[in-house]
Amino acid sequence: MSEEIKEILEGLPFWEHLEKEERELLERESRKVFYPAGASVYSGARECLGEIFIQKGILRTYLLSDEGKEVSMYRLRQGDACVLTASCILPAITFDVEIEAQTDVEALLIPVGTLSKITKKNVYAENFVYKEAAKRFSDVVEALQQIMFLSLTQRVAAFLLDESAKNHSQLISVTHEELARQIGSAREAVSRILKQMAKKGYITLTRGEVKLENKEEMYKLLN
Amino acid sequence: MSEEIKEILEGLPFWEHLEKEERELLERESRKVFYPAGASVYSGARECLGEIFIQKGILRTYLLSDEGKEVSMYRLRQGDACVLTASCILPAITFDVEIEAQTDVEALLIPVGTLSKITKKNVYAENFVYKEAAKRFSDVVEALQQIMFLSLTQRVAAFLLDESAKNHSQLISVTHEELARQIGSAREAVSRILKQMAKKGYITLTRGEVKLENKEEMYKLLN
Repeated sequence: MSEEIKEILEGLPFWEHLEKEERELLERESRKVFYPAGASVYSGARECLGEIFIQKGILRTYLLSDEGKEVSMYRLRQGDACVLTASCILPAITFDVEIEAQTDVEALLIPVGTLSKITKKNVYAENFVYKEAAKRFSDVVEALQQIMFLSLTQRVAAFLLDESAKNHSQLISVTHEELARQIGSAREAVSRILKQMAKKGYITLTRGEVKLENKEEMYKLLN
Repeated sequence: MSEEIKEILEGLPFWEHLEKEERELLERESRKVFYPAGASVYSGARECLGEIFIQKGILRTYLLSDEGKEVSMYRLRQGDACVLTASCILPAITFDVEIEAQTDVEALLIPVGTLSKITKKNVYAENFVYKEAAKRFSDVVEALQQIMFLSLTQRVAAFLLDESAKNHSQLISVTHEELARQIGSAREAVSRILKQMAKKGYITLTRGEVKLENKEEMYKLLN
């Protein structure tokens, strides 16, 4: 087992409450996983994977309708844990999600069989998983608030400012199509808004990229 | 302490894991609460209440925008526990909700001070609270799916069928205004849909009430 894996496992808040054989089981079964940008990491209808701890990259969690319509719920980044990939062992979670790698992703996976053995025996481990789920609950309520309470212009501005802050960059790599999917809207509507923003000098648009030129004015849109 | 309260407390899944003094604290501090129909039970911006166990009636949980726009998240009924009324002690829950009594409500309240003492010391109690939160997470994702994936006609039909099933009655007491609020839409749009359904003979409309006349056709709308 690599030092990297050991470090993540020993940083888990329930590590100190585990029995020796539970620790050994986790150390033996946990493994590194890699997903290239664009890969489907998880499909609720298909499989049960386990818990993923992101070391590098971004995962996007979204809902998919029977007709193929998508709604983004939230994105996870370095240091985040993804528990919905283990929702088969969480009876309180009754919905199905899709998860894809938005960039190349390096992560640690605790496979579902291992996780299930440990959460069944150890209430601290189970509690960790449910707490992580509650954090994502907060993310989804935020998404719902944005969809219901903000105008499309505000949603586009919020997305761009959010991306810029998270990546410490004024330059955001995203197509109009992707941006529309992220905020649960249509490409045509999003393109129209982006053009309006560009016309006002808030952003500049190039193929597959948006550059923020005037963040101050963008923030004003949100109030 | 009434037999009623004792019964609820002893039915809690973490009861058997409590110390004697924790049980005594719960028995001493828990109390019955009553809310008349229409009363505000909880406002995220205002207070921290504790955990509510519904014995009778319906609570509605909703989001409120700065402009006064509402979006219903879910409703809770007899046997359900409401944990977002104690979200001040749940660091993973970062959003504010509003909760109102949709009918007269009788419930048991574990006040937040008591709940906090017990969840801090006892991981089983904490885990119970987070599990209840995860159930509500599922409800909110369902609401998000309905808003994003269903047509307005389908959302109205789903609401009416859902109410009918939960109350074991064909007659649903709801104004067009209330129904619109429940599904996050506008009254005018909902009134138009209800009139179309009435014209087709699926429902009959009287002041403040909707009667389901042809559930089979209503279910067909959902597919």
